[in-house]
Parts: sequence; C-alpha cells; structure tokens
Amino acid sequence: MLQDTFIVGVMGGGSATQTDAKQAYELGRMIAENDWILLNGGRRAGIMAASARGAAEAGGLTVGVLPDDHKGQMAEHIRIPIVTGMGSARNCINVLSSDIVVACAGGSGTVSEIALALKCGKTVILLNFDIGILFESYRRQNQLIDAANVQQVITLIQDFKNISS
Amino acid sequence: MLQDTFIVGVMGGGSATQTDAKQAYELGRMIAENDWILLNGGRRAGIMAASARGAAEAGGLTVGVLPDDHKGQMAEHIRIPIVTGMGSARNCINVLSSDIVVACAGGSGTVSEIALALKCGKTVILLNFDIGILFESYRRQNQLIDAANVQQVITLIQDFKNISS
Amino acid sequence: MLQDTFIVGVMGGGSATQTDAKQAYELGRMIAENDWILLNGGRRAGIMAASARGAAEAGGLTVGVLPDDHKGQMAEHIRIPIVTGMGSARNCINVLSSDIVVACAGGSGTVSEIALALKCGKTVILLNFDIGILFESYRRQNQLIDAANVQQVITLIQDFKNISS
Amino acid sequence: MLQDTFIVGVMGGGSATQTDAKQAYELGRMIAENDWILLNGGRRAGIMAASARGAAEAGGLTVGVLPDDHKGQMAEHIRIPIVTGMGSARNCINVLSSDIVVACAGGSGTVSEIALALKCGKTVILLNFDIGILFESYRRQNQLIDAANVQQVITLIQDFKNISS
Repeated sequence: MLQDTFIVGVMGGGSATQTDAKQAYELGRMIAENDWILLNGGRRAGIMAASARGAAEAGGLTVGVLPDDHKGQMAEHIRIPIVTGMGSARNCINVLSSDIVVACAGGSGTVSEIALALKCGKTVILLNFDIGILFESYRRQNQLIDAANVQQVITLIQDFKNISS
Repeated sequence: MLQDTFIVGVMGGGSATQTDAKQAYELGRMIAENDWILLNGGRRAGIMAASARGAAEAGGLTVGVLPDDHKGQMAEHIRIPIVTGMGSARNCINVLSSDIVVACAGGSGTVSEIALALKCGKTVILLNFDIGILFESYRRQNQLIDAANVQQVITLIQDFKNISS
Repeated sequence: MLQDTFIVGVMGGGSATQTDAKQAYELGRMIAENDWILLNGGRRAGIMAASARGAAEAGGLTVGVLPDDHKGQMAEHIRIPIVTGMGSARNCINVLSSDIVVACAGGSGTVSEIALALKCGKTVILLNFDIGILFESYRRQNQLIDAANVQQVITLIQDFKNISS
Repeated sequence: MLQDTFIVGVMGGGSATQTDAKQAYELGRMIAENDWILLNGGRRAGIMAASARGAAEAGGLTVGVLPDDHKGQMAEHIRIPIVTGMGSARNCINVLSSDIVVACAGGSGTVSEIALALKCGKTVILLNFDIGILFESYRRQNQLIDAANVQQVITLIQDFKNISS
C-alpha cells in the first residue's frame, strides 16, 4: 500500500521572534507526529529553519522549496531540497504543493503566500498572525481561519483532512 | 538617442466595478500621455482590459504578462503579450518588470502583487485600495503610498522619477 | 485599428563569433523593416545584443526577457525589458511569447530553447546552426527548418505568416 | 545525524517503448537500493511512471516535479509531489534540484532538460539516448557521459559521489 502524502505547508518570516520560532518548532514537531510531510521555503532562517528542525527531530519528512539556484542557504533539517532558482516566484510552488497552508507571523513574503494560497483555492490557517481587514470573503467561507496556538492548528488540519477524505 | 523605457505596472482585479474600471482607463490614458509604458496582467478582464484600453487609445505602448500558455484570454489593447504559462507565478514578473507599481482595487491576486512588489524593493501606490493594517513599516518609509485619484498617482510617479534620476 | 503584434523570437549564444553577430544584427534589422517585434533573451552579449541593435537601429521594437532579477546586464537596445528573476526558466517564456522562433548558433541554452519551442508547438528556423540528428520528426513536419542566410529566414517567416493568417 | 539527501534526477519521455520503460523501472529500483532519492517529472506516463514505480517498490523516496497546477496526472508511485503550475519551465527545477541527471530516451522535453542541466553545471549521464553531435565540449570535460546499461549508470553515479565528497 502506498504511504500517505499529505503535505502541510508552513509559511513564515525569515526573521522570527524567539516566541514565534519556538512555536514553529512545535508546529513542525506535531506535523511529523501526525505523519504529515512538512513543506516550507527551505532557508536557514526564522520560521523555515525552526519548523524544519521540529519536524526532522520528530522523525518527519521535510521539503524545502528554495528561491535560490543553489543550496548554500538551505536549512540544516531539510531532507528534500527543491532548488528553483526563481526567487519569490517559488512562493507559488509552495502553496500549490501544499494540501493545506499554515501561515506563521511574517512579512511581505508571507503575505504574498497567503494571498496566492487563497487565490488558488487552498485553505489557510493563520497562527498568531493578524493581517487586519484583508480577505474577509475568504474568512466567511472558512477558507481563511485564525488559530491561537499550535494545538488548535493541528486540530483544524485533522478536521480538514476528515472533511476532504 | 535611445527612448525612455520607464514602465508603470498597473495591478488590479480581473473583476472590477464600473467606477474602478473607469479610473483604470483614465490611469492608462495618463500613463501613455506621459510617454511611459504600461504593463499589466494582460487579460481581457477588469482593471487589466480597462487600463490597457486607456493607454492604447492614447497611443501608448502596452505590455501584458499573461498567466496562460496562450493568448486566448488576452485583452484587445495589449500590444506586447508576454506568454508565461506560469499561472500566478507570473505576478512576480509583473512587479520585477515595473519601475513603479500602481495597485488598483483587487482581490487576492492583487494583494499578492503588492506584497511581492514591496518584498523586491519596488514603490507601490495604492489607488483607492484599502488594505488595512498591513505593511506599516513600508508605509513609514514611503515605499507604500495611498492615492485618492488618478491625478495624484501621476504626480507621485513624476516625483518618483525626479528623485530616482 | 490595432497594430500588428507579430513577435519573432531570436535565440542564440551569449558569446558569438563576429560572423554570427553580424548576421544577428542583419536579422534584427530585417525583422524591424518588416514591422515585426523582436524578442530575445535581453542580455548585453552575443546574439542578444547584436540582434537588438539591428532591430532598434532600424526603428523596430525590441523586447528582452531577462534571466536576472535586475537590469544590470541588459543590452543597450532593448526597449521593453521583462525582468523575470527566473534564470533559465525564462527560456520557456521566450519561446511561448514568440510567434515564430529563429535559432542562431549557440550553446546549451539555445538548444534548450529550440527543444522547448518544438515541445510547445512553435515553428523553429535554424540559421546556420547544425544540431545534427536531433528532432528528425519535427523536420519531417516542417516544424524545424534550416536556413542558410538571413534573407531566407525572412522569406520563411513571410511564408509562415501567410499560411497562418 | 542527518540522513543523506543525494538526489538522482531521471529524465525521459512521457511515451516510452516497453524496453525503455523496463530499463527505467530497473534504474529506479537501483537508485532506491543505493539509498538515493529519485526525482523526475512526476507524471503518470512513460519513463516517469516506470522509474517512480521501480524506486517506490524498492522502498525508496520519490519526488515528482509536476508541470500542472494539480495532481490529476501524477504517477501513482510519487511520494512527494511538487506542484509547479509552470508547464515546461519546471524542467529547470528538475535539473537544478538533482545532484546528478540521468537522461533516458525521450523527445524534445528530455533534450531541453539535458541542455538545461549542462547549462547549469550538472553532470548528465545518457542511458541509451543518442543525441548525435550536440554538446561535444561537455563530453570532452566528462560533464556528459554515455552509459550502455543501468548498472553502468549506477557505477558512474557512485564514482561521481566519491569524487564530489
């Protein structure tokens, strides 16, 4: 029998507060514990490095979709590097490749990923990321959902999987 | 002597209210009257079609960066179609190719373009597009500016050109 | 009435012999004289710089699809720079955006463009570029055609336009 | 300790003879037996489906970089689908993400991948794929190597790994 290939995309800033990084680590760990694959932007920084470490240390599979055309900036705990050489155009690949997207606190790059994810029909969970008035129509359809902590994110993903399958 | 190649990127929704479309038409016209090149997403819809028509009818040059791998959905007044076949990943090309970006009212696609433009260092002018609390740090550095009408957009672009050159 | 927007893609090496560069210049000039738009890879080197100069000096419109995320390496005679930031992935955009492709002598980059052009259904004219046994099936269907000189390329394009329209 | 992440890219046609498909299956199997990761174009056809099946049935990890913006055409034995939505522009990602590239018999798509791989500095092994006179300079530098059978490919990769590390 083939293994499950449910991919959780974790978006978030290249620079992160210690609190956000700790939360991203925890998120990565719980993604792995649920036997889901973690996908992120792959760089050795912020949310990307922290979530990859959390997943890898719990024995999970980690995919990093790199903006660069080399692996020089890759996070240590990425198992599968996808080298795109496309800069921020790779943000589109991040969200298309994810079965569901979790957005941790971030800057303009992370906002672009939330927007692109909604645009291409993905469900997006915001983990402690206040983006203000944007995307109200997506909120009303439950395509954009706020979560207050990592456990809530995991529960939302489990619910999403149950509904989808 | 070589001609000027200042490119104004006009982003905005595929569906637009009549007011927004009229404003986009006017914006296109004034871009052409200033001898700037108009670049947009190229499709036969909303802000894209209206701004291209405005520019073309005033004798301006229009570039459309299409998401599709064909020209079937191209707006009539696009002179130079760039066929990317890359879906929303072409949003990145839109902003990288623009010397300055004007964002008219739009949805998630337009927000992704604002975010990507800020991320790669472009100045973004919002024309009647309230995006709420996002991107405050860019506002403080005048990289993100609000405009209330088309004339104000044009004046802001002229100022930007004077400072840059 | 809208202007014609027939785009001739000129592919070819970043380094070129003096003979090849002279031929590319001549090709660019004749493309402009036929009121076609020239599109190439946009860099200040080899076939790209030479063909753009030929077209621009004859008053033609030139589009350069750059691999970089900036205009630092852009050829002087490019009027419309498309900044992709995608490296060689932009080769795909080059051929998708061309109504017909002319391949001058080049290296692996040019061969990739010939292959991608054939793959997406474009007609390719080889100008003094011997690629050996490859692509025989495309030759048999006249999708891949050899030309011995610039005048022959122009005649082939004129014929192609007449058949297509 | 982190696991090895050596990625072997297997390129090849969407339509394949039974002999070529059998060989691709064998290649996939031996890639997995060496604990390397297999990466290919991900589609449910030809060399892609056969090599993925070979690797998966031997317990290996398989990555498929899909041209589509969905997983509808994905090969059954792909564990990690990367959904690019970029058509043939994803060929560039295939080769950038591979530590070494093996090209099985194919058409224009496969030739574009060989060309792009050489262009970006990757070593390419041709498995029973006669591409004629092209790329002689790469052959002379041993960046392009012919192999007559799967065992020879594996030995060449092992040698490459020993030299690189």
